[in-house]
Amino acid sequence: MSFIDDLKWRYATKKYDPSKKVSQENVEKIVEAARLAPTSSGLQQFRVIVIKNQDLKNKILPIAYNQQAITDCSHLLIFAAWDNYTEERIDEVYTQITKERELEAGFLTNYTDTLKKMFLNNTEEENFIHASYQTYIAFGFSIAQAAELKVDCTPMEGFKPKELDKLLDLEKYGLKSILLLPIGYRDEENDWNAKMKKVRNPKEKFMIEIN
Amino acid sequence: MSFIDDLKWRYATKKYDPSKKVSQENVEKIVEAARLAPTSSGLQQFRVIVIKNQDLKNKILPIAYNQQAITDCSHLLIFAAWDNYTEERIDEVYTQITKERELEAGFLTNYTDTLKKMFLNNTEEENFIHASYQTYIAFGFSIAQAAELKVDCTPMEGFKPKELDKLLDLEKYGLKSILLLPIGYRDEENDWNAKMKKVRNPKEKFMIEIN
Repeated sequence: MSFIDDLKWRYATKKYDPSKKVSQENVEKIVEAARLAPTSSGLQQFRVIVIKNQDLKNKILPIAYNQQAITDCSHLLIFAAWDNYTEERIDEVYTQITKERELEAGFLTNYTDTLKKMFLNNTEEENFIHASYQTYIAFGFSIAQAAELKVDCTPMEGFKPKELDKLLDLEKYGLKSILLLPIGYRDEENDWNAKMKKVRNPKEKFMIEIN
Repeated sequence: MSFIDDLKWRYATKKYDPSKKVSQENVEKIVEAARLAPTSSGLQQFRVIVIKNQDLKNKILPIAYNQQAITDCSHLLIFAAWDNYTEERIDEVYTQITKERELEAGFLTNYTDTLKKMFLNNTEEENFIHASYQTYIAFGFSIAQAAELKVDCTPMEGFKPKELDKLLDLEKYGLKSILLLPIGYRDEENDWNAKMKKVRNPKEKFMIEIN
């Protein structure tokens, strides 16, 4: 199947078959797609948290407005971004880049100085929004990877991030949650959304040619 | 090639071969991937603008800090989102959904009332940030689609959106620009970035299992 066919196949799954589990290999591929996503200045300002423990999913359920996908899914992925940009975090990334690309030490210092000047003058909120933008690209890559593997998923913005961060103690990782992605296998018969026509803005309106 | 292989193949192209053009069919596929992206409440709060006119690309060059990819690329895609959520825009989307899914008129009114209550109480800035988040997912889908087609691209946040909006008169569409995506074919020999190792946060740090 082509990429376009995969995107047509997928839909926001509302009802999972809780007996069907996603293999560890496929979970790792879905996370790997996010890891390979491009990010602003290559900073990779986010991480993916994977939860399969049922008790923990049960605790997350009310935090996500009791959406059944949370507890019926096979694995719950949480996309969480840096709570802020810091000098240390920027340096850690660029020390790794310098090493892996076998550049001279200090070769990228001018560049990181520019990054620091830019980000460290922003408010924490501005930086978190910027980190969030990058996270949405990676979130899209995971959704697309799941579709290629014929794994269902449910892109989800609707939950209380502060409560989730507290439950999982994300502060200790320097992260704040942004998005949830339950993954698993659809219970097609009982999913009202499985039969719904995918509706999109018409092609001739969506693409605007200016010349 | 698998999705993961496509993502490994791609990189932020810095130098294009201006003589090589992307076919109209492939341009349309890259836009189609964005059109198929999931969005919050299915609102599709963004559009993709396609520019191939060289004079216009030349005018955009200084607005994008003279990044050569703007003028050397085959086509320049601009991802632009609704400048705000409005009652009319929400109604237009849900009128179409109601029609295409052959639902009774008014079947989704309770739902759209909730959406309106939520979005129309936000500031214009909050709504634009929310629309931007959705746009980044679609942007990711276009990047991935380009990779499948072995079309190169350059994800770009660095430009002056207000100046671009003015140049293209995006206000008349109710849109504001967010992201640029030059597409084309790499000039591998002259692209310093083509030979660079792709560096990512190590797998064991990037994926966090909490159980």
